[in-house]
Amino acid sequence: MTARPDASRNEAVIADLVRALGDKMVLAGAERPARNDSDWSTLGPQAPLAVVRPTTTEAVAAAMRICAAHGVPVVPQGGLTGLCGGARPLPGSVALSLERMTGIEAIDPASATMTVRAGTPLQVVQEAAEAAGFLVPLDLGARGSCAIGGNAATNAGGNRVIRYGMTREMILGLEVVLPGGDTITALNTMIKNNAGYDLKHLFIGSEGTLGIITRLVLRLFPKPACTMAALCALPDYESVVGLLTAARRGLGPMLSAFEVMWPDYWDVIAAMPGLRVPLAPGHAAYCLIEAQGTDETFDAPRFQAWLEAQAEAGLLSDAVLSRSVADVRAFWGVRDACSEFPHALGPHEPFDIGLPVAAMDAYVQACKAALAERLPGAFALFYGHVGDGNLHIVAGVKGAVPQPKDVIQEVVYGLVREFGGTVSAEHGIGLTKKPWLGHVRSEAEIALMRRLKAALDPDGVLNPGKVV
Amino acid sequence: MTARPDASRNEAVIADLVRALGDKMVLAGAERPARNDSDWSTLGPQAPLAVVRPTTTEAVAAAMRICAAHGVPVVPQGGLTGLCGGARPLPGSVALSLERMTGIEAIDPASATMTVRAGTPLQVVQEAAEAAGFLVPLDLGARGSCAIGGNAATNAGGNRVIRYGMTREMILGLEVVLPGGDTITALNTMIKNNAGYDLKHLFIGSEGTLGIITRLVLRLFPKPACTMAALCALPDYESVVGLLTAARRGLGPMLSAFEVMWPDYWDVIAAMPGLRVPLAPGHAAYCLIEAQGTDETFDAPRFQAWLEAQAEAGLLSDAVLSRSVADVRAFWGVRDACSEFPHALGPHEPFDIGLPVAAMDAYVQACKAALAERLPGAFALFYGHVGDGNLHIVAGVKGAVPQPKDVIQEVVYGLVREFGGTVSAEHGIGLTKKPWLGHVRSEAEIALMRRLKAALDPDGVLNPGKVV
Repeated sequence: MTARPDASRNEAVIADLVRALGDKMVLAGAERPARNDSDWSTLGPQAPLAVVRPTTTEAVAAAMRICAAHGVPVVPQGGLTGLCGGARPLPGSVALSLERMTGIEAIDPASATMTVRAGTPLQVVQEAAEAAGFLVPLDLGARGSCAIGGNAATNAGGNRVIRYGMTREMILGLEVVLPGGDTITALNTMIKNNAGYDLKHLFIGSEGTLGIITRLVLRLFPKPACTMAALCALPDYESVVGLLTAARRGLGPMLSAFEVMWPDYWDVIAAMPGLRVPLAPGHAAYCLIEAQGTDETFDAPRFQAWLEAQAEAGLLSDAVLSRSVADVRAFWGVRDACSEFPHALGPHEPFDIGLPVAAMDAYVQACKAALAERLPGAFALFYGHVGDGNLHIVAGVKGAVPQPKDVIQEVVYGLVREFGGTVSAEHGIGLTKKPWLGHVRSEAEIALMRRLKAALDPDGVLNPGKVV
Repeated sequence: MTARPDASRNEAVIADLVRALGDKMVLAGAERPARNDSDWSTLGPQAPLAVVRPTTTEAVAAAMRICAAHGVPVVPQGGLTGLCGGARPLPGSVALSLERMTGIEAIDPASATMTVRAGTPLQVVQEAAEAAGFLVPLDLGARGSCAIGGNAATNAGGNRVIRYGMTREMILGLEVVLPGGDTITALNTMIKNNAGYDLKHLFIGSEGTLGIITRLVLRLFPKPACTMAALCALPDYESVVGLLTAARRGLGPMLSAFEVMWPDYWDVIAAMPGLRVPLAPGHAAYCLIEAQGTDETFDAPRFQAWLEAQAEAGLLSDAVLSRSVADVRAFWGVRDACSEFPHALGPHEPFDIGLPVAAMDAYVQACKAALAERLPGAFALFYGHVGDGNLHIVAGVKGAVPQPKDVIQEVVYGLVREFGGTVSAEHGIGLTKKPWLGHVRSEAEIALMRRLKAALDPDGVLNPGKVV
């Protein structure tokens, strides 16, 4: 009964979009590219009515206005590397992809800022900063595919949050198209600007539900002159906390990563072919510490002296110190070997949770025990950016198809609630984590989120049903 | 005609407040303290109906609910040190002061966080962090009086923003009472938490117009082990930008302040009795550079080597290097001598603006020329946190009472608009800068601010008429 009006509405919205933007920007029917049907979540493809690929802010605004007028939901898309379904099309929606809206607009060396279009891949942004003598410290595995606008929309994290903060902390200004099609151009380039409400933070991390980010002003950082790293084995978790505290004090703002791997993780990666694993198994915890300095002649000896002092203080069971850039890369290879888990472990459930640092090991032990009780034979590996309170978990039952996903999620997220953590440290909520949002945010918080959503998108035309 | 109903409403709201909170928390009539009639703005006193001084979040919420029910506006107050009138009572309002809601609730050394009540003076917060071996890097002249909740509500800046960011960057979690009296308890302690919208940023910097901050989770930083400083004279503004760029690169994250003083400023402070001014007048610009290190044996020689390299590169006309903590303090004495301007200069207008770093000197020259043309005999001194894009100006006509405030503001803010700056870098908008908000924020931005205000405070009961 409803198919007919929907069909005519769909035709009408596509016709209006083509009329306003031309048929090169609007791809429907056979021309619609399949890649825009899904992101990196495991939700599978969902075809949108059309894919719109504007190249200007005006075209984004025009597309948004047309869709809003027809009551057709819009799903903004960046590099489609999100893991929680935030950019996955909704049934009957138009996918608005920023992939053609790319390019660096300006670099201001004196203010140390870059103005960039939202669809620009992160790696292009990094390289442009590098060429101008600066650093964009945001970095993650998907750097070649993910778009800087998507990084902002999801408040991406990554490996060096302990030193540089989340994406949020690297953004000075934004241009955003609102659900009604109005454009907010707030391309502030100043570190200090207290003239009225800071609107950018409303959109950063809102996963494309409150506005479509079209341009950004990024803060640029000085390029570090040298990087030192150490891979350490520790006798217990107390020593991990002690080492973190000592690293914060002794390395100060040079500390650029503090990663921890629990022993089950180490056992799995030690068995991986072709991986250089420089410490023996059997320790209670493993730690990758990285520091970035401004002068190797001062900073390399200082890092070594600091590490030796920790060994003397009894915090380390064993440790290896990097002597070259290749060593640093090899140490990170151990930490990044988790990307091989799909092959090494077979089917499993991955998690991205956050916890107070002091509670982490108690959480790990409780989680392992609960999983073993609920799912005999289950495996669970724990590792993550402990310096930032961020823990990753992969858990599953070897060979089980399908995996007992619901039980695993119940255990992991139930304990997250108990230990005062978060169900999403860096990946966002999107669609896949929505059922768990209430575990860690109160009813009053979620009600306020809904109030903001209703204030900005009263008709629910922008990425409806995501996040809240 | 309206006096009678107002009077009975006023009596009723006070009676309800006393009934709910007791008469120790609610001060009206002769018991109402005069200090709550104004803040540090020049707007002068305005008596509220009553001063409410709750000691718990529940009491704040109860007071808010009662006032909202009577349609009586509430003005939240912290340490009353704001310069723009944000905490000054409105006619017919209840002043809700957090001054009795003080104390450190928890310090978590592993996560490096502190949970604190909003009325706690900044200096108490600093000292508690220090005693636990940490640093709260927020620091400003009013530290003994200002409250940490007010620092958050105004997103306070200060001297070390270049290294640690604004107050916003130091806050992980907040508890807020909304205009309707609901409480949002979001005392997050994790650096990474992407579970839903980040609500705290909505309230930080909103100057008490969207909610009343009652408790905060602060991020703690490691205490620096040593501080080095240099006071430099430079041949031109190009060298200032060159020195800033070199400082960012060579000192990296050690760089904790980069302050610039233009020559008119130097001439005035050089004539101040009792001030040690270690560089001769006559240079084009003066720069105070500070770096905080983690180990004096490494960092002091490095700082000296860096400074010598800048002299060799021709960026410096003259420079003095600190040899002691007393030297560092004396160098800051030169920069902080601006606090004596009321005595040294007589009546004048102070400004807190922001500009792109590259445009600053052009702005200064344009501003001086325009003031000289519009107000023959006017003086104008320029100085500020140039590393953060923040410029302070004091301008006036010697001896004129009243000062030609309107003309001076027109010149200063008109050029701010022209140069793409901001009318408030760190002091906020409050009441006094409201007429100038439209100079630097677009109609679309201000419309969105109003939409947020209406969404959170539909009846306009919380600090109405401030900011937007």
